[in-house]
Amino acid sequence: MAVSECIIFDGKSYSTKIDNETARLSGKFYSIRGRKPRLAIIDPSQTSENSMYGRSKIKKGEKLSIDCYYIRVPQPVNGKSPLEYIERMLIETEPDGIIIERPLPKWMSERDASQIVPEYLDVEGINLRNMGKNMTGEKTIIPATADACLQIIESLDGKYGKDVCIVNRTRVVGRPLAMALINRDYTVTVCHSSTTDLKEKTSSADIVVTATGKPEYFTSEYISPGAAVIDVGITKTDRGVVGDVNFRDVYNKAGFITPVPGGVGPVTTSMIMKNFMTIAMKRLEDRLNY
Amino acid sequence: MAVSECIIFDGKSYSTKIDNETARLSGKFYSIRGRKPRLAIIDPSQTSENSMYGRSKIKKGEKLSIDCYYIRVPQPVNGKSPLEYIERMLIETEPDGIIIERPLPKWMSERDASQIVPEYLDVEGINLRNMGKNMTGEKTIIPATADACLQIIESLDGKYGKDVCIVNRTRVVGRPLAMALINRDYTVTVCHSSTTDLKEKTSSADIVVTATGKPEYFTSEYISPGAAVIDVGITKTDRGVVGDVNFRDVYNKAGFITPVPGGVGPVTTSMIMKNFMTIAMKRLEDRLNY
Repeated sequence: MAVSECIIFDGKSYSTKIDNETARLSGKFYSIRGRKPRLAIIDPSQTSENSMYGRSKIKKGEKLSIDCYYIRVPQPVNGKSPLEYIERMLIETEPDGIIIERPLPKWMSERDASQIVPEYLDVEGINLRNMGKNMTGEKTIIPATADACLQIIESLDGKYGKDVCIVNRTRVVGRPLAMALINRDYTVTVCHSSTTDLKEKTSSADIVVTATGKPEYFTSEYISPGAAVIDVGITKTDRGVVGDVNFRDVYNKAGFITPVPGGVGPVTTSMIMKNFMTIAMKRLEDRLNY
Repeated sequence: MAVSECIIFDGKSYSTKIDNETARLSGKFYSIRGRKPRLAIIDPSQTSENSMYGRSKIKKGEKLSIDCYYIRVPQPVNGKSPLEYIERMLIETEPDGIIIERPLPKWMSERDASQIVPEYLDVEGINLRNMGKNMTGEKTIIPATADACLQIIESLDGKYGKDVCIVNRTRVVGRPLAMALINRDYTVTVCHSSTTDLKEKTSSADIVVTATGKPEYFTSEYISPGAAVIDVGITKTDRGVVGDVNFRDVYNKAGFITPVPGGVGPVTTSMIMKNFMTIAMKRLEDRLNY
């Protein structure tokens, strides 16, 4: 591909489009059910970071006519697990979808988290059966960050090619994104901290997705001319919030780039709400088909 | 890596080692349970191919002191699904593990198959929860063909490098193998029929896994000097049974190659029985921990 002007992805305007669709679904839900859809946000660790993310979800929920229940989970006392408390709160609030805020505390394993959330209330695609569905190519919800990357990549419509290199192998980004892309005819390489020649891998891909948390690590050497670069990383530094990609350097070489902040981030937040409304509507429609 | 003599993998001797371990587990099962372990082999389509594979499993079962129940499923009559028949047969035989023979008939979807087999009797790793476990990196059973490739690759102990290119994206080979390898620090590229430049991908990998069913398609041009080549393909041709790899051509360039027949095939058959004994023993041990 010839090198031409690099397009900077506008995450805010893209996420507004998603929000509009979510608001439409939320209105439809209200008109059928006679009440707003309810999203339970479980916060098992209550770090200041969690509270911040939580507040931003509640604020977004208000805009989209979604009732958010923020459930602060007490820490274990005398070894008594608060899992029961969570269960009770879920019975009380009767949510249409559940999110568990990360990072998880020590007493809650990823396994615990995936078991708390039933398949049909699983906004984040962490239930084992939903993971399995993505693995088999069945239609399902995938984790919001992976989904945000998927939406952005799909919006490129193959213009930059279909060879994707993902630098991340977690269960919330790299793995589900890889499976979802393979389902859509992309050729996918998954790299990670143990990859021997990372530069060789990223620089031969049409599309590079980075989620390493290494601030401004990926310079133009890592990117092929005219490639699309999706930057999931977000790190607070002395010089402000930056991504995994050295933006100024890569901008001059890439064909498409998502900035940090204002790129993948806002799309992810919007995808969470959109995915919530998708499962809430599905369940509602399943009920109407009696 | 310097080009030296190519090692031809001996699938038969490798599978004998696996069988010995399976026989040991089967003997242990008998000594605890007072009966042989029971494997239900469900044949929903009864093609001559299925019967052949079925017979070879029963024969192997006899050698390993495993009772195989071959369940021939009647075809649907007047739209009445035979799923109930299968359920009844499973209740009658009380198996310690279940296999569903492929190809599946039209009336049974992959989804049906994955739902017939409960998580704890799932010899082939097709239950959605088991798929999900592999996706999250949790210990679980994966499909036998993928597992055979995994065992062979792990036996190479990184000697040929850890960059793997898999040419297959099915739920029984490419996808589960990719996830299992990522769990073990391999860098993985998944290619398929829609991959644009397949040769570029395979020829830059340390290890190539082919499962395309295209007889002798992969010539030495597709392989990097000294690479390891795992050939899952098996096609009957006028000149006999051949794999996806042009053996004679690739042999002169690769560092390691699995022949067809006598490579991945026998290891797969042995892995099915080994995986069956693994889950049968796990369940038995769970029961003993009362």
